[in-house]
Amino acid sequence: MSFRGFAATAPGKPLESFEYDPGDLLPDEVEIDVDYCGLCHSDLSMADNEWGISSYPFVPGHEVVGRVAACGDQVKHLKAGQKVGLGWKARSCMVCPQCMTGNHHRCPNSSDTIVGRNGGFANKVRCQGAWAIPIPETLDAAKVGPMFCGGVTVFNPLIVSNTSPMDHVAVVGIGGLGHMALQFAKAWGCEVTAFSTSPDKEAEAKEMGAHHFLNSKDADALAAAAGKFDMVLVTVNVMLDWDAYVNLLKPGGRLHIVGAIPKIEATWFPVIAGERTIGGSPIGSPALAGQMLDFSGRHAIAPIVEEMPMSKVNDALEHLKSGKARYRIVLKNDL
Amino acid sequence: MSFRGFAATAPGKPLESFEYDPGDLLPDEVEIDVDYCGLCHSDLSMADNEWGISSYPFVPGHEVVGRVAACGDQVKHLKAGQKVGLGWKARSCMVCPQCMTGNHHRCPNSSDTIVGRNGGFANKVRCQGAWAIPIPETLDAAKVGPMFCGGVTVFNPLIVSNTSPMDHVAVVGIGGLGHMALQFAKAWGCEVTAFSTSPDKEAEAKEMGAHHFLNSKDADALAAAAGKFDMVLVTVNVMLDWDAYVNLLKPGGRLHIVGAIPKIEATWFPVIAGERTIGGSPIGSPALAGQMLDFSGRHAIAPIVEEMPMSKVNDALEHLKSGKARYRIVLKNDL
Repeated sequence: MSFRGFAATAPGKPLESFEYDPGDLLPDEVEIDVDYCGLCHSDLSMADNEWGISSYPFVPGHEVVGRVAACGDQVKHLKAGQKVGLGWKARSCMVCPQCMTGNHHRCPNSSDTIVGRNGGFANKVRCQGAWAIPIPETLDAAKVGPMFCGGVTVFNPLIVSNTSPMDHVAVVGIGGLGHMALQFAKAWGCEVTAFSTSPDKEAEAKEMGAHHFLNSKDADALAAAAGKFDMVLVTVNVMLDWDAYVNLLKPGGRLHIVGAIPKIEATWFPVIAGERTIGGSPIGSPALAGQMLDFSGRHAIAPIVEEMPMSKVNDALEHLKSGKARYRIVLKNDL
Repeated sequence: MSFRGFAATAPGKPLESFEYDPGDLLPDEVEIDVDYCGLCHSDLSMADNEWGISSYPFVPGHEVVGRVAACGDQVKHLKAGQKVGLGWKARSCMVCPQCMTGNHHRCPNSSDTIVGRNGGFANKVRCQGAWAIPIPETLDAAKVGPMFCGGVTVFNPLIVSNTSPMDHVAVVGIGGLGHMALQFAKAWGCEVTAFSTSPDKEAEAKEMGAHHFLNSKDADALAAAAGKFDMVLVTVNVMLDWDAYVNLLKPGGRLHIVGAIPKIEATWFPVIAGERTIGGSPIGSPALAGQMLDFSGRHAIAPIVEEMPMSKVNDALEHLKSGKARYRIVLKNDL
């Protein structure tokens, strides 16, 4: 039995119909019937081999929502038909110190859903059972896909930074990740400020949970916000004036950058004097993904998505490239 | 009544005898009879106006051990004759959010002992009562001075980094700060590795508490230590290959830099992927300084000092500049 999906045959090429034989289901894996799959900027970077780790034919897709189609012999905690999600990571070793302390997302011997594996722009996809996250009935399957990569990427910083509901949080970049971060931080109880270079996003950002909006091209506004934030969460992957962003932090505050910037460069004295921290994080653990879903159900948090049919995947990629997606594209399986 | 001490009259000049009138004792201040004062590299930087914030005549000295000579009207928690220490900070506002949450060392409206004030290379020095730290009888007054600046600077990172006794900690630079950090981390229960460019310090570093010693000029040894540490505490103020030091961290680990380096520059992907953090901190709060002294008494921790008479302060400065001090110079008041 073969899987049917879409693959790039080389960097920069449009995706084409692609069939492949997945081989035998491993004992610790599940097979998922794909219903929806979010489109993340990383799919584009990987399709173009920007990071030098892509293999071709390349099947993107790592924000999967679907139903368990089959379980390997060792998988007892899931059952056929159950709704599950799959994000960036598809497998971890389960026995290293990171996995054994609940930090499976930091496992050095892990596999990513679209690195050396075929992703979710297909009728079916596979992953280790531990990485198939059960989706509560309270959540809308058509929208929840982006939570499994972009969502947990901005939820995890609340944990890593030990964010208190009393904290003042800035979210820099109101796109696929940032628009979820606003909702999480608001529901967490924080005072939330949206930073964006697009002033036209102000009204929507406030609907999503921002108490304040700051045009990040406005140097005076940036300077006036000095010392106001416990955490500044950067979701964009462009180089910023890092000293200006450190300067936004209260003493003891944290600049947390999840955007795939090439490097950080920052004057050190303000970091020392203010007992500040600069950090980053990848996605989150499977356990945390489950807690995120539970939290999201309770607070009616959902990505704002544009749904397109999976057969129009190349149009979807062009729409993503245009920067006009509001705020995350989700492909509905019509294969 | 005038105070007698030593002052630089201009950057780069030797210190000279200097008398000054301290004016009336403020109601919230104490006056301290100086018995000992440690010599910190910051005294040298300030004497030479390296940071552009020195005023002349400049009286260095911010690792004071002495006895309360007089208390301002509002100071009720100290009494004349009581042994106290004074470090880098001499005053904070007591009412800002930082002071009110016990983080007086992060107060934005604070004063430093030798910035716009006269320091402890004198027969007497003054500070706000809250910053005069009572010294337990268990500690040797002749040695404890360096704890009030260098000591608390390397003790505080254990708090800021939420260091567990199960952690593996690297201390980079075994000098005035690092030799205390080794003792603290050992007594904290951690596995401790000393990093030094001076292989001749290995035996002493191990006596101070290091379980392992690594020659930081040895690139192969650095590479072999990849992923081993929960915290890497950098006490030197020279630019290192920061990527190599990030690489030393376990997933979730923290590169903590207390050395006054000009800036940090680090490739960001390893920070994100490893959920790592780069941070810094200044000294510590007065409450933490007290806890540090209590901890040090219980664990027989003390700086290793070379005692010199205060009248030989210029010889002491030359000795510090030579890099041969082992490990901290303390001036005994003979004025």
